[in-house]
Amino acid sequence: MIKGDMRRKREVALAKVLSAIKMHGGTTLLSTGITGDDARLAKAAVEAGARMLEPNHPAVALARGYKGVTNMHAAEAIRHEISIEQMAEVTRGVRSVVGPDIFITVGIPGGFTEVLPRPLSEDDVRMIAEAGADGLHVHKSDLDDLRDIVELAHANGLLVDAYVAHPDDLHPFGIPASTPEEVADTAKKMESIGVDMIGLMTGMSYEGVEAGQIPAVIRERLQALVGAVTRPTLAEGGINLTNFQAFRGTGVNILVVGTAFDDIARQAVRDTVKRFLGGK
Amino acid sequence: MIKGDMRRKREVALAKVLSAIKMHGGTTLLSTGITGDDARLAKAAVEAGARMLEPNHPAVALARGYKGVTNMHAAEAIRHEISIEQMAEVTRGVRSVVGPDIFITVGIPGGFTEVLPRPLSEDDVRMIAEAGADGLHVHKSDLDDLRDIVELAHANGLLVDAYVAHPDDLHPFGIPASTPEEVADTAKKMESIGVDMIGLMTGMSYEGVEAGQIPAVIRERLQALVGAVTRPTLAEGGINLTNFQAFRGTGVNILVVGTAFDDIARQAVRDTVKRFLGGK
Repeated sequence: MIKGDMRRKREVALAKVLSAIKMHGGTTLLSTGITGDDARLAKAAVEAGARMLEPNHPAVALARGYKGVTNMHAAEAIRHEISIEQMAEVTRGVRSVVGPDIFITVGIPGGFTEVLPRPLSEDDVRMIAEAGADGLHVHKSDLDDLRDIVELAHANGLLVDAYVAHPDDLHPFGIPASTPEEVADTAKKMESIGVDMIGLMTGMSYEGVEAGQIPAVIRERLQALVGAVTRPTLAEGGINLTNFQAFRGTGVNILVVGTAFDDIARQAVRDTVKRFLGGK
Repeated sequence: MIKGDMRRKREVALAKVLSAIKMHGGTTLLSTGITGDDARLAKAAVEAGARMLEPNHPAVALARGYKGVTNMHAAEAIRHEISIEQMAEVTRGVRSVVGPDIFITVGIPGGFTEVLPRPLSEDDVRMIAEAGADGLHVHKSDLDDLRDIVELAHANGLLVDAYVAHPDDLHPFGIPASTPEEVADTAKKMESIGVDMIGLMTGMSYEGVEAGQIPAVIRERLQALVGAVTRPTLAEGGINLTNFQAFRGTGVNILVVGTAFDDIARQAVRDTVKRFLGGK
């Protein structure tokens, strides 16, 4: 009954992504962390040119000081307790301030690798679609689970961006692949089950890499991903102002940046408070 | 049955305020805007030395993109639609990340000059107290209404900070007083009805004053306030990094700063996005 409608909806969403990639010379930004869930800062990001935003539930846990968590590692442990309704409210708010042309993909409880049983229902996904989302930001680490989500998302007009990870990663954020060859194979499998945008977890967690380079092994994995699929590609994990240029050279289409924004916002507040209090 | 308990609770809260004023050389900061409601940035403010925070409902409306509002003026028109439950959730989250020693005063629907009937109930105020607040940040513009709130707040262990304003102000944020003499009289009346901390709305709205000075009329009103009462005094409205030093010279105890933080956080995000997108 609605297959045609939802296919069109997904085409509109994909067009937003392709337009952003083109507008930004082949590599665009998926702005997340505090810029994904706080409507004030989402708007600021868009004013500066961002065309893609990602509200997610661990970030909302941090925003609400849920259970006193103060960093993304701690937030990972309780993020499943954030509700779909809260994520819908956040999505609605961001959508209403940035307007209809911005691409919004949402991290929701049930869409990541969960530590408790948290299946997504039709109603859950429909609620997020109705809140104004274009896609789901998915971090499943099992291909069958990912296939189920893709089916549910597509049926409700949402794209899926999902990720390849490494078995040794601190948090399970994607389908595990140990070598560059496995990255390429996994990416192709993800493409074949309908994942719309395929990303690589860099494994740099939330700390990032200090120098202006990315480790050779990450570069190889990224190039394997980029070479394996025709769909838009992403890189996520620890990307910041000191290392992002190195990512641009790999051909990856979308850089996911979250913690760097949180760090910068926090530092701006700290510096300002110090000045008001008469410090250095 | 609980009068003694609540008097002690208020004494503990007042001790936090007096300690902050002393710690910061006679003039401390009440940090608000995004630093009042977002737990990530509240924590950053406290890490830099802030000892007083103020979550408020128009700021939460902006954070949630409620009805698409993107500035404080627009948020003023719909802030009464934010719920007490939402403000309790925000307060709980901020309290849990900053710990028990920080003073938190909360702007709640029903505590400002409302455009629709929005009386505060015992349950409302108790909910905010239970969420971890030390006080209510009150912007009533009628002395009788203010007296009612003070009674309800005190009975539930909460202090009240309330404000003197000017009849010509854009938004009604305090008891109106046209001249410095009236400011002093009004402040004394507020003290006599039990208001714990008495502030002056500068009338600089959300735009602030560009130069490093404050207008002479504001200085006179502030000095009238400071000279009239022995309770802690505050100044609120458009205080920012370019004008705050001038306020320090008046003897006012607490500078309320909100929009300046929002502006600085937004600018930090914009600058960072521009750099990621390869701009100037």
